[in-house]
This record gives sequence, C-alpha cells and structure tokens, in this order.
Amino acid sequence: MGDVGPVPVGIVGASGYGGVQLVRLLADHPAAEVVYLGGDSSAGKPFSSLYPHLTNCIDLTIEAIDLEKIAAKCEVVFLSLPNGLACQMAPTLIEKGCKVLDLSADYRFENLETYKAWYGGDRSDGAVAANAVYGLPELYRDRIKDAQLVGCAGCYVTASLLALAPLLKQGLIVPETAIIDAKSGTSGGGRKAEVNLLLAEADNSLGAYGVARHRHTPEIEQICSDLAGQDIKVQFTPHLIPMVRGILATVYATLRDPGLVREDLITIFSAFYRNSPWVKVLPSGVYPQTKWACGTNLCYIGIEVDPRTDRVIVMSAIDNLIKGQAGQGIQCMNLMLGYEETLGLPQLAFYP
Amino acid sequence: MGDVGPVPVGIVGASGYGGVQLVRLLADHPAAEVVYLGGDSSAGKPFSSLYPHLTNCIDLTIEAIDLEKIAAKCEVVFLSLPNGLACQMAPTLIEKGCKVLDLSADYRFENLETYKAWYGGDRSDGAVAANAVYGLPELYRDRIKDAQLVGCAGCYVTASLLALAPLLKQGLIVPETAIIDAKSGTSGGGRKAEVNLLLAEADNSLGAYGVARHRHTPEIEQICSDLAGQDIKVQFTPHLIPMVRGILATVYATLRDPGLVREDLITIFSAFYRNSPWVKVLPSGVYPQTKWACGTNLCYIGIEVDPRTDRVIVMSAIDNLIKGQAGQGIQCMNLMLGYEETLGLPQLAFYP
Amino acid sequence: MGDVGPVPVGIVGASGYGGVQLVRLLADHPAAEVVYLGGDSSAGKPFSSLYPHLTNCIDLTIEAIDLEKIAAKCEVVFLSLPNGLACQMAPTLIEKGCKVLDLSADYRFENLETYKAWYGGDRSDGAVAANAVYGLPELYRDRIKDAQLVGCAGCYVTASLLALAPLLKQGLIVPETAIIDAKSGTSGGGRKAEVNLLLAEADNSLGAYGVARHRHTPEIEQICSDLAGQDIKVQFTPHLIPMVRGILATVYATLRDPGLVREDLITIFSAFYRNSPWVKVLPSGVYPQTKWACGTNLCYIGIEVDPRTDRVIVMSAIDNLIKGQAGQGIQCMNLMLGYEETLGLPQLAFYP
Amino acid sequence: MGDVGPVPVGIVGASGYGGVQLVRLLADHPAAEVVYLGGDSSAGKPFSSLYPHLTNCIDLTIEAIDLEKIAAKCEVVFLSLPNGLACQMAPTLIEKGCKVLDLSADYRFENLETYKAWYGGDRSDGAVAANAVYGLPELYRDRIKDAQLVGCAGCYVTASLLALAPLLKQGLIVPETAIIDAKSGTSGGGRKAEVNLLLAEADNSLGAYGVARHRHTPEIEQICSDLAGQDIKVQFTPHLIPMVRGILATVYATLRDPGLVREDLITIFSAFYRNSPWVKVLPSGVYPQTKWACGTNLCYIGIEVDPRTDRVIVMSAIDNLIKGQAGQGIQCMNLMLGYEETLGLPQLAFYP
Repeated sequence: MGDVGPVPVGIVGASGYGGVQLVRLLADHPAAEVVYLGGDSSAGKPFSSLYPHLTNCIDLTIEAIDLEKIAAKCEVVFLSLPNGLACQMAPTLIEKGCKVLDLSADYRFENLETYKAWYGGDRSDGAVAANAVYGLPELYRDRIKDAQLVGCAGCYVTASLLALAPLLKQGLIVPETAIIDAKSGTSGGGRKAEVNLLLAEADNSLGAYGVARHRHTPEIEQICSDLAGQDIKVQFTPHLIPMVRGILATVYATLRDPGLVREDLITIFSAFYRNSPWVKVLPSGVYPQTKWACGTNLCYIGIEVDPRTDRVIVMSAIDNLIKGQAGQGIQCMNLMLGYEETLGLPQLAFYP
Repeated sequence: MGDVGPVPVGIVGASGYGGVQLVRLLADHPAAEVVYLGGDSSAGKPFSSLYPHLTNCIDLTIEAIDLEKIAAKCEVVFLSLPNGLACQMAPTLIEKGCKVLDLSADYRFENLETYKAWYGGDRSDGAVAANAVYGLPELYRDRIKDAQLVGCAGCYVTASLLALAPLLKQGLIVPETAIIDAKSGTSGGGRKAEVNLLLAEADNSLGAYGVARHRHTPEIEQICSDLAGQDIKVQFTPHLIPMVRGILATVYATLRDPGLVREDLITIFSAFYRNSPWVKVLPSGVYPQTKWACGTNLCYIGIEVDPRTDRVIVMSAIDNLIKGQAGQGIQCMNLMLGYEETLGLPQLAFYP
Repeated sequence: MGDVGPVPVGIVGASGYGGVQLVRLLADHPAAEVVYLGGDSSAGKPFSSLYPHLTNCIDLTIEAIDLEKIAAKCEVVFLSLPNGLACQMAPTLIEKGCKVLDLSADYRFENLETYKAWYGGDRSDGAVAANAVYGLPELYRDRIKDAQLVGCAGCYVTASLLALAPLLKQGLIVPETAIIDAKSGTSGGGRKAEVNLLLAEADNSLGAYGVARHRHTPEIEQICSDLAGQDIKVQFTPHLIPMVRGILATVYATLRDPGLVREDLITIFSAFYRNSPWVKVLPSGVYPQTKWACGTNLCYIGIEVDPRTDRVIVMSAIDNLIKGQAGQGIQCMNLMLGYEETLGLPQLAFYP
Repeated sequence: MGDVGPVPVGIVGASGYGGVQLVRLLADHPAAEVVYLGGDSSAGKPFSSLYPHLTNCIDLTIEAIDLEKIAAKCEVVFLSLPNGLACQMAPTLIEKGCKVLDLSADYRFENLETYKAWYGGDRSDGAVAANAVYGLPELYRDRIKDAQLVGCAGCYVTASLLALAPLLKQGLIVPETAIIDAKSGTSGGGRKAEVNLLLAEADNSLGAYGVARHRHTPEIEQICSDLAGQDIKVQFTPHLIPMVRGILATVYATLRDPGLVREDLITIFSAFYRNSPWVKVLPSGVYPQTKWACGTNLCYIGIEVDPRTDRVIVMSAIDNLIKGQAGQGIQCMNLMLGYEETLGLPQLAFYP
C-alpha cells in the first residue's frame, strides 16, 4: 500500500444485513476504507439512523446511486442488492475501471441461460458476465486474483461446496448420491419484514422450504460439475432454524471405495485445504457447531464415515453473513488487491 | 368404564420431562387417573416442589419405588426411566397383572442381542421381552390392543418411521438409499444438567451428534426391515436445534418408479394413514413446521418429489415429548384399555 | 344451555394472533361454537390457509365484514381489530342484540377524552361506550355478568393490575410510588411484519420502548384510581423480550406500614383472590416464571417484601395471548352468558 | 513497551466463561500475551479440548495452580474463580510482585465485614484487601492506574452504577428512590450445569430471582454511597432472560428538581462520561438494545424523563461477559500498565 493510503471502497445497497456486515468488517480493515454508501429507499439518511449502535462510529450518509460518482470515488465497489440489479450497474462500473464484487446471484453463472431459467429477467450484459469469476477463493483463488468482476458465492453454496469439493475433485464419491441437508439461521432472509421471519413465528420452530426447487441448486451443481469434470445433479434442501446466524450443511454421499476410513478423509481434506487459512478441518470425532464460526470468516468441517452404509457424512459450519456473504467478499477483495487473504478479517469467535 | 371410575395409573420416574408430560396429559384424561408417582432421588418430595406451577393442581408426593405397592394400587404403570432400569421392574409388574408401558429402549427390540450390542448390560428377562409389543400404534395397532407390555417408540424413531413406513410397506423406494436427517429440540436430552444443553451453549447454535452411530439406528432398522420384509440399513443423523420442543425428520430416498409424482405419494400416504387419527398428511406444496405439532399428539407429514433426481423427500414433524414420548404412551394405553385412540389427548396447537 | 346447543360466536379480525387464539380456545369450549370469521384483507380465504396446521380442524372461511349478517348469525361477537375500528362496529351489533367483547382499547375508557388524547380520532359512540364494562373479571366480575359490551383488559394492563389491585384496594402502599417494570414476548406486537420484531433483530436482545409515554399508562391509571378512590399516576415501562409468549410485570411500591412482612401480604393477596380461580398466589419465596402460565388462562403472582427499603415487590406472570387477550375475552364471555368463569379454558401448562 | 515485548499474562480459572473471554480478548491485544492458564479440575487438559473451536488458535494447556510458578512467569494475573478463592491466592501473588485483577467478589468491598455478612467465610487478608481498588474505570480511573490489586466490578453492578453515577454524583435524585430492575442473559450463570439454566427450562421464559436479597446489592450500595457522600440503600432486582449474553439495567429515581428535562440529563451524562471512551450516551429518544453492546466493551446509556411523575429512567446495556467481566478486567489492566484504556478491546458489535 505504501504511501497511497487505504483503498477507497463503496457499498451499493448498504442498508441490509450484507451492507452492515461490510461496513463493520471494513471498519477493522487496515488497507481499505469505506468512502461511499449507496441506497435507494434509504438515500439521504445517515447510516447510523438505520443502525443506531453505530452512531459516532460510522459517519457516512447513504447517497443516491450515481454510478459516475461511485466510480470517481471508489476503487472497489461492493454490490449488495436483490438479484437482478447488479447486472444493471456492474458493466458501467467495470468500464470505468472499478473492481466490482457482487453479492447477489447475477454473476455467479457461467451460462446466463441457467440464470434466466431460475431467476427470470433478461440480461444484456453477456460480455461482462463472461469475464466474471466465481467468488469462492478456496476453489478459484488464482482466477479471483486477476478478476475485475467477482460474483461472490452465497451462504448455502459456500457451506455446501466446501464440504463437497475435496470429494468431487478427488473422485471419492458417486456424484449422483450427493445430498445436502442445509440449515440456516433466519438472518439469511435479510432485513426484510416478512411474517414467516418474525420471532413469534420462527422461534421454537423448524421447517424445510424450497424443497427440490431452491435457486441455489443450479449454482451448486455448476461448481460441482466443474470440480468433477462431468455434469452432476445434487439434492439440496434448506431448512430455517430458530437462530440469528449460522449455516450447517450436512452432506451425504456414497464412497466409491468402501475401504476408506474417517482418518483417510480427514487427511485428504486437510491436504486439499492446506493453503486455505479460512477452512478448519476438525480432528477425528469432532463435529462443528455453527456458533464456533459466528462472527468469523471461518468454515469448520467435520467428517465421518459410516462403514455400515459406505457413506461419508461431511458437516460444514459457517457464519452465513460473514464467510457466507460479506467476509467472503472481503476475502475476494483481498485477493484482487494483492493482499493476504486473511487481512482484516475476524478469526476468533466470541463464545458462548 | 361404566361405574368403575377411571383406571388407576402409576408413573415410575416421574421427575423428568417424560414424567411431567404424563402427569399433565393424564390430568386431562377422562378415563385414567394418576394415583402413584415413583422416583428414586426425588422420593418423599411433593411433585409440585419439582414443578412449582403445578402447586394446587397435582397433589401427589413422589414415593420410593416399591413394586408390590405399585401393583396393588395401579392397573397401568408407565416406566419413564433411563435405559436399563425398566427391564428390572417390568417382569414383576407383569406377573402381578399390571399393564406396563415402558418409555425407555428396554422393550423395543425383538432381538435382545441387538439391545445388548448397542446399550450394553445383561438381560435376564428374555421371556418377558419376547411378549413385548413395539409401541407405535400407526404400525402395530392390533398387537398393542392385546399387549400387556409395550415398549413405546421413541421420539426420533417415531418421526422417522412415520415418514418411511408407507414407502417401505408399498415397496416404493430403493431401501438402502434411505437417509434420515433428523433435528430435535434440546428437551430431548431430558431434565439433566449437562453443559452442552445449557441455554448459553445450545442457543443460537446447531450441530450434529452421534453421526453414524446413534443408538436409535438399530431400532429404526428393525422396524424398517419388518415393513420391507428384508434386512435394511438406514442412515440416521440427529442434530441438536436451539429450541425447546419438536422434531423434524427430513427423509430422502430414491424412488423405484421415477414416474411417480408428488400427488401420487400424497394419495398413497393418505390412504396408508386413513385410520390413523394422529397423522396429518399435508396438501401438496405444504411442508410441516414443528411448531404446528407442539403441545399435541399429532405427526404432520409433508411430501415432495424431485423429478430431477428421482428422489422422494418426506418431512415429518412431531412434538418430541408428546407423540415422541408421553402422548404416544397414552395413545398405546388407550388401545390396551379398549378406548378410542384419541381419548384425552390434545389435538390443537397453540400458535404462535 | 339445555337443548339449545352451543352459543353461536363470531370473530371479527380473525387473521391475527388474537383471532387464532380465540378460534383455538373456542374449539375446546363445550358451550360455544365459532360460526363466523370476519376479516378485511383476508376475506374469502379459508382460515386454514393462514394457519395451515388447522387444516381439517377448522373449516371456516373468512368472510367480508357485514354487520347485519354477523348479528343474524351470532349471539356473541368478538372484535379483534386495531384500535379505532371496534367503535365503528359495536354500536350496530349492540343495537341488534349481540353481546360484544372488544379486544382493542376502544371500550376500555370511562372518559372518552382520555381515549382521544392517547389514541387520537373522533368518537361518536359516547352513549354506547358509557355502558361498556371494563373486562377484567377479577375486579369487575359482577358488572361483566350484566354487560352487553365489554372492553377487555389488555395484556400489560392485566398483569399490572392483578399485581397492584390488592395493594391499592386495601390502601397498603403509597400510591405514587408504584412502578411497573413490564416485560413481554414479541407476539404482543401481533402478526405484523415489522423489522424490529424479526427473529434476526429481536432474538438475543432486550430493550425498553415507549418509556414514560406508553398508551397503556392511562388505562392502568384509570383502574388504579378506581381501586384507590383517588387519582393515581403510575410509572409503566414495557420491554421487549426475546421470546414468543408471556408477560412478567415486576411491580414496586413503598408500603404504608413498614411492619408488614411477606407472609402478611401473601395472606392478603390470597384472600383478595379467593374467588378468582385464574389467579394463583405463590407460596413464600417462589417467584413466577412466565412459562408456567403459557398456554393457560392463569396469572401467577409472587410476593416479596424488602425490610431494608420498606418496599413490596410483586411479580405477576401471564400468557399475553390468553389471560392477556383471547382467554380473558372468553372468561368475560362465560360470565356474560352465566357460565362458570373457568368453562372451556386451559389450566395446565405444558412444561417445559 | 519498546523492546520488551508483550506483557506476560496468566489466567487462573481459565475453563469458565470468564476465562475463555479473557483468552479470546487477549489474543487480539497488541501488548499482552497469555502465557499461563491455570485450573483445578481441568488441569492437564489442552485448553482447546474445552473449547474445540480454538484448536490451532490457542495452544496452551491448563496447568495446576502453583502460585510460585505463576508469579515467575506472569507480570499480570487474572483470577477468574468462584467467590472465596481469590483471597487465598492474591496475597502471595501480590507479595511476589504480580499485578492482580480479580473477577470475583473477594476484593470489591472496602469493609470486609460487609463481604463476610453477604458471602460468608473468614478472611485473613485484611491488609491486602485494604489496598485493593474497585475496578470500575469510569469511576476510579486514577486509583486503578496506581493499583497492584483490582477487584473488578461485576456485570449487574457495572450496568447499574454507570446508569446511576452521574445522578448521584451531581445530587440530581432523591437517593432512596433508586430502583434497579436488571435483566441478564443466562451466560451470567457461568458454564455450570444447572437445571434452571438448561435451554429447555430457560428458553421462552422469564423470571426474577434473589429479590430483595441478591448479593450484588451491598456492592452497588457501597459505590452509590461513595458517590453520593452519604449512606444509600437501593432496590435491586435481577431477572433471567432467555438469551445468551447481555444485561439491561432499567433504573428509576425521583428527580430532586422536577424542572429538569431529558435533554438536560443527556448533557449532564455526556459531560460526566466525556473522557470515558467505553460509555456511549444515546441521543434523545433512543433507548439501548443489549445486542448493540454484544461482543464489545461498550456501555450504551439511554435517558428518559417522565414529567408526569418527576422521575428519571436510565437504561444501560452491556455485554455481561465483556464490559461486565473480562473486558472490564482488560480495561483495568490497560490502565495499570499505562496503556490507553481502549487498547486491544472490541468496539463494534456484529449486527444482527
């Protein structure tokens, strides 16, 4: 960084949980500084009017979204918006030289037809999208380093893929047997007032949703297919859990070689993630608790083999708003800017 | 019942959650009356000293366990004790003519060798055990009616089996593909002071336990094998959820006939449970929330088919302490006494 | 009731938590039957589409609000609507001979000027309001028996008044020292999608609101003044607690006679509530937990005296949606119809 | 610090929540390093076996408690033990030159007779205790700087005193009218397996405890009396809240001058805490949420005046395990070592 000071960063869509995580995490980042917050319905409001605990800590006001202005001010721009909006902004920002990190689904698909099939809408930014890199550093670290546009992996997908990647990459499982039973805290639904996310409704209850048709399915399958070198379909079932933060993915698959034991797989996973500081493969017999990851950018992975059924069961736990969203974005930004992957990101949970 | 008044009932092991559920449910039962509460460490204490909200409602004192005395007083005895104790008491009670309902694992196994392999200990009550009936009325209603000793199905197993039974009985799935991803509130751990069940530890967190080796596995497999007419192994993974009550089992299996659609399965399940008033098969597209079942003896079942993967996903929700424990026991008792299966059991949840 | 069958009951505003509680409680009532559900935005929908767990239990469809039709069908009408709407409907229903129970604030005030000062709006129903009775049976049982229109006491107010009434009625405290620190679960906010009631916001947090200006203050003061025979001001501070149901009011006041001890007050409270089956005065040294009251129409009261400060501290716990809302309404209805006050209302909590 | 490197720190009683907070917070401290963890029942265990999420982060093993060895290794020692143990260790550590910070009640009392009256036991360390300083930096900053032994203020007391101090110091209230209604998450009970702290018991419930006799009362009164320059009695009532972390104290008192308005008091509080970086006085009309303070060393204070009753209501929110325990200790340590009070302590909550 030398004399040049911290990199100026903008956040478009700052009012939601993604935005407030970025603001909070970047406040502790030694080489980046938030200089712009953009929003639509909240334009003109001090950021701390939305999050009063930040009064006197964050003195920015949310501004109307003006791409010219953003590009003039910011070297890096995070887009933290509902699906279908980033694709209207990224091309301009890219053209003006910004590095762009999108937290929505808009730039996660190699094939825009898949995007349109699951998310709807039209897309006129095919050329820009073609250059976007999938933002999961543990799998695409080198490509992210050179990218100008990153479509950051979402929360469920991150937990799912980090559990599956070593298995698929090494050809250890029968791909079509992969089942992901995923569980998320309600903050994954965003800061949106919806009846089913009320404490009175969601607390002390538990249920699945989007069974057999959740929109994260094609995204998981795209990366799984890339890892396995063949087209793969997975079963993905999300559940809403009565807690604020955290995702646990419990992943089941049949081993190709029933002779593999738990310790073998721990060795393989540890090797696979040797250079991934944010992944912690747990010792034999220890299974992750989501609370361990909360407030950090870590992914904890626990592994079990059932010799009775020849299946491997992998459990991965992340904080859905950090490794599953804002922290992942900053990890990608670090790579894009040539920093250490770990720079400025939290590593230790408060417990309990 | 005629003039004879309510059936006198005893509860051995009254101090735990199973006990307090039984006491509370039987207080509303029109044809049974709790006349004896037995315990070990709590002997001599008024029951309401353990549960102060019951002061002036339940005036029984916990007595030391004296089988003679129990048999003299009670026509029906519930045993709500840790595993390995019921088998020391049931033979005497049976001999003296009591009808016995055990809530532990002691009388759930046809083959005591399986019991000993998973639970340890010796068993000298083989003859008595051989006459015990498995206490899941939806599957063994007729046998329960004639039983003197019932080993009531536990919470995880009830949720799992009610989801799997129609599939296995009708031969609709490839048995070895069955995976049960189960989630339970912490009351399933009982009223035992353990660090991992503290609110400070368990709240806002989520994790699996007993992966690939939980003791409910052989029990599930025994009944699944009985239903399918062949030996079956299932994958069963329990998770601890930050809530008090409720179990959700998410069950995955590959359909033998990939042409079956969701509506077919709803029809099949509805027919299978036509005479089971405590099972509610949900309409197309509705998935159960555990809260719907809380405070009731109901099991809600939601069904989905994924034509992309040829899998059926069945979700079943129960209150782990009612349909998963005390309510199940009373449902069995109703059958054993010739009453309506629904007599005196709650059908409507308080919501939210 | 004789041969005439259950009393036909209508509920206007059935879609909210008050409505669903009424529906659920009345389903168990032996002498009343819900024959009409009315709503505005939900008109035309089956009730079970709003509360899917009631499918096959409650087969009513929500109808548009037509006062003629309601009066023709129903002997008793519950109004469970936002403030300011009941006063537009009650006069017509009263005129047509219905007994009306309003769960809003509209008919809780003797002086409509007080209502208008705190709630705003105009009121043209002065004559009808003048005949309304305050719906807290423990204090106004006899008047409720003869009433045609009851303005049922709300949740915070019920907990507060049941704690204060014996003290004020017997002149035991210095009235202006009364402070009510009240705590409520979030279901008190209703089934409204508001950001501050989201699980992600409200869980694991705690705060006060409406300090020194909450609209329940004048209602508490009106009844306190009536009890004391003089104008009284109280301090009332509500707090939002991360739980679904329950209210605890912790009430502080200075004793006139510092010689009174805890046991004296327990005796006085027990005598005061001798004929109130829904109030449970706890033994010496036992303080109420809100969970004890959940799912019941009970109010638990614990009493402590601090000889160091000459204060009495009274704690009262209720289920905010039952004794604090729908159960209270049914208790009032029972009185209005000449039934036992306890008829059809739940007395035993499920625990835990 | 120059070339001397970080100050070596020891923690006696490392296995509990106080210990794990200290370990976690000091891991981020730039000028201190944990070199010793001591315990009794956990001696010999790797610290990460108690807190598996810290595997590979904290490589210390818990050692048996040997005061000689501790003094040889550590410049600063935190004692995080049950009441009555620190007073057996501190004299030796002090004599050997360590700076000692005790998180228990042992060194919080000027008058050991008060300690013995409320906590029992004998004390032979009167001379050492006489030199202990009360560890609440906002009130005793200068004395802490020069202290060798600090008895850190506890969680309830910190929240209570920070709300009351400006009022008492400036003589703004009638002292005997002060009432503290305090609410705490269950982690305040420590990592102890007790039935009433189980999630199944404590979740979705709420109750008071220790009414009129909680042991924090004399500690609050001691400091209040010191601030006011006269003997003061306060009313203190703690409540257990269904959440993990956080304390809210709602404090009521009658103003001497009924002409004071909210803004006056905000001005007075802001001035009082001008040099206290860890106290945040909130703007007019904003009341604190405990979640805002979680994971930080901050105390948020909201102020309201009720002109109808001439009372001031002050609400203060802290994280009970940080500003209420371990963070407070480190804040004191910073002062004792001549560092900035804020060094190495977290200032920004993760939200939500």
